[in-house]
Amino acid sequence: MKACGLIVEYNPFHNGHLYHLKEAREISGAECMIAVMSGNFLQRGEPAIMDKHYRAKAALIAGADLVLELPYPFAVQSSDLFAKGAVFTLAQIGASTLCFGSESGNINDFISSYHNFRKNEREYQQSLKDHLQQGLSFPEASRHAYQTIGLTGQSMDLTKPNNILGFSYVKTIFENGLKITPLTIKRTNNHYHDQAITGAISSATSIRKVILEAGRITEEVAEALPKVSLAQLEAYRKAASTWHHWEKYFNLLHYKVMTMNTEQIADIQGVDEGLEYRIKKTAKQAESMHEWMHAIKTKRYTWTRLQRMFTHLLTNTTKGEMEEIPSLAPLPYIRLLGMSQTGQRYIHQVKKQLETPLITKIKRNGDPLLAMEERAAQAYYSILPPAQRRKFHQQELEPPLRI
Amino acid sequence: MKACGLIVEYNPFHNGHLYHLKEAREISGAECMIAVMSGNFLQRGEPAIMDKHYRAKAALIAGADLVLELPYPFAVQSSDLFAKGAVFTLAQIGASTLCFGSESGNINDFISSYHNFRKNEREYQQSLKDHLQQGLSFPEASRHAYQTIGLTGQSMDLTKPNNILGFSYVKTIFENGLKITPLTIKRTNNHYHDQAITGAISSATSIRKVILEAGRITEEVAEALPKVSLAQLEAYRKAASTWHHWEKYFNLLHYKVMTMNTEQIADIQGVDEGLEYRIKKTAKQAESMHEWMHAIKTKRYTWTRLQRMFTHLLTNTTKGEMEEIPSLAPLPYIRLLGMSQTGQRYIHQVKKQLETPLITKIKRNGDPLLAMEERAAQAYYSILPPAQRRKFHQQELEPPLRI
Repeated sequence: MKACGLIVEYNPFHNGHLYHLKEAREISGAECMIAVMSGNFLQRGEPAIMDKHYRAKAALIAGADLVLELPYPFAVQSSDLFAKGAVFTLAQIGASTLCFGSESGNINDFISSYHNFRKNEREYQQSLKDHLQQGLSFPEASRHAYQTIGLTGQSMDLTKPNNILGFSYVKTIFENGLKITPLTIKRTNNHYHDQAITGAISSATSIRKVILEAGRITEEVAEALPKVSLAQLEAYRKAASTWHHWEKYFNLLHYKVMTMNTEQIADIQGVDEGLEYRIKKTAKQAESMHEWMHAIKTKRYTWTRLQRMFTHLLTNTTKGEMEEIPSLAPLPYIRLLGMSQTGQRYIHQVKKQLETPLITKIKRNGDPLLAMEERAAQAYYSILPPAQRRKFHQQELEPPLRI
Repeated sequence: MKACGLIVEYNPFHNGHLYHLKEAREISGAECMIAVMSGNFLQRGEPAIMDKHYRAKAALIAGADLVLELPYPFAVQSSDLFAKGAVFTLAQIGASTLCFGSESGNINDFISSYHNFRKNEREYQQSLKDHLQQGLSFPEASRHAYQTIGLTGQSMDLTKPNNILGFSYVKTIFENGLKITPLTIKRTNNHYHDQAITGAISSATSIRKVILEAGRITEEVAEALPKVSLAQLEAYRKAASTWHHWEKYFNLLHYKVMTMNTEQIADIQGVDEGLEYRIKKTAKQAESMHEWMHAIKTKRYTWTRLQRMFTHLLTNTTKGEMEEIPSLAPLPYIRLLGMSQTGQRYIHQVKKQLETPLITKIKRNGDPLLAMEERAAQAYYSILPPAQRRKFHQQELEPPLRI
């Protein structure tokens, strides 16, 4: 049975994701669609609006066959390590293709850009270094460096967020000689960062914004989501009594920072260049996450970088722990969140050839990566009332969903 | 001007405290009454029902002339270090007498008991060690050891909580040759630990219990408190929108423990003998502080010990920091929370002879002891809504109250 991989966050699963899933199934000719999904915390350093189990269920009902969890330290990462964790997971489970959405929509552009990049890598690195030294943020410096080697042109514009991710996937595949064929689909309509809902295909950012501001599923949101995703969002709010967003974590984070000394804060992943003093100083005045982040923000730090840092602070993830991460691909385990009947058959078929243990249930005192995952789950649920918190965390210890 | 010292918690200031204050003024013949008061966290490891500034104000209006803060690491302590911090503070500010309430009521009993104790100290220590090895808690083992050397008889019963404290004060004075004359007043009526209000003189424990269970100041509470104390309690609840008790801190502590590893928990003061595993394991099921503490409790650990441990966990106080504490008497500073006009005159009079700096305003980046105090204040206020939290913490940075 052929399998095609998708790399997703589904926060929440919307019509654009459904389109992607269907198109990928068609162009890959695969029977089994495997989604590698970020867990409770996402690439841009945000808590997911609802937990990974509820999001996985929506994806399975909507047509995915397997949902695998991208481990926390790869999920809350810049594109290169994010790509590494996700692509290796797909290679390890035996996917023969990977299909991603991009602004470009042409896989040959990615492949030739990769070769271009390899040829001019030294020039890229030098330019990157120069721009970082000028005080630019990493994404800004990287954009300039790509420009230097001609990778911001019309055929491949590496200033576009989905092109950047896709490029990282292709790079991971080629650099590591993985047996995965990359495929791409042109993203329709809405841009990744768009703030406003613009019809049936809207960005997850715009959808979350409306839901969280209105505190409910509005009509325009309902238009942008498949019914199953709506149902999961409603069910989650009913059972957990909340959706998740940064403001909900303000008290915990503020308490934590106010009782840590600067050396302890500096141990946290992402707290660099004396940021520990800035975090502590700005906390004194802040009355919300929004105020706090605004007070910390300078040109040097992107929102994403600050949000990731706050995620690591919330989950108590240290620099020491994160140092090990790049060397963890191939990954020590594959975590299965849920499967369709096709997915079950696929697992049954590949089981014996898998070189990586497939984790269907979290066992305590296991891998250090699992311990981080456990902490991330605890931190994520910490805003729920005690009884719900326990119940939701219980999902972590149960076998995968079967749809 | 003669000054008499009192060692207090005033949680809250009640009729028994008023009686103590008046009697002490009379028998000491002092003009200036100095209360050394625990801050926001108390000896038995509990958050005070309202903050130190509100409690200090009640005490000043009720007749105290100076309120000094007993620093956090001495306040949340067993009787010996608690006594050390408090008695040294009084010696450093120049009090010539110390007047404490006791079950005994006869100062000669304390003095002769002290000499008795010194004579039989080796026997006491051996007995203490034996009983601790049998698995008894420290207070239990200490009770047996005092029994061995005849200090639990009628003339001096060192199983009674206020006798124990008084004995520690007398011991501190004599062992360090401090120029303070100890005095004692017999406590009337109610016992320290009594759970039920029994009229105009009731224990602080029973008063807090009724207030927190009823969620308001009942008539029986009103009878047991001077009007000024009632007014402060009401004002605090109005301004802070809450009173403080352990349950309010459950979410913060639970979150914290669930995102710490056992090594990190074991660094916290009071986490001994593998308690870190027990704390973490029991946290998984607990839905309240009450449940959590019950699940941790064994014969070996007293409630007080567990509560102190949770206080240190909440304030992020490590074993490393606490190791320094016994050597900090004489204390590096005296912190003034508030003063009457008499108190101001007293300060004016002794100012030049003081060998210890008198702190009237917290300056950041100062003494390590002040940094702990700052963290304790932050932790204490962390349950308030953001705007109130900031406002209340601001009190820490302002000059002392003048009544």
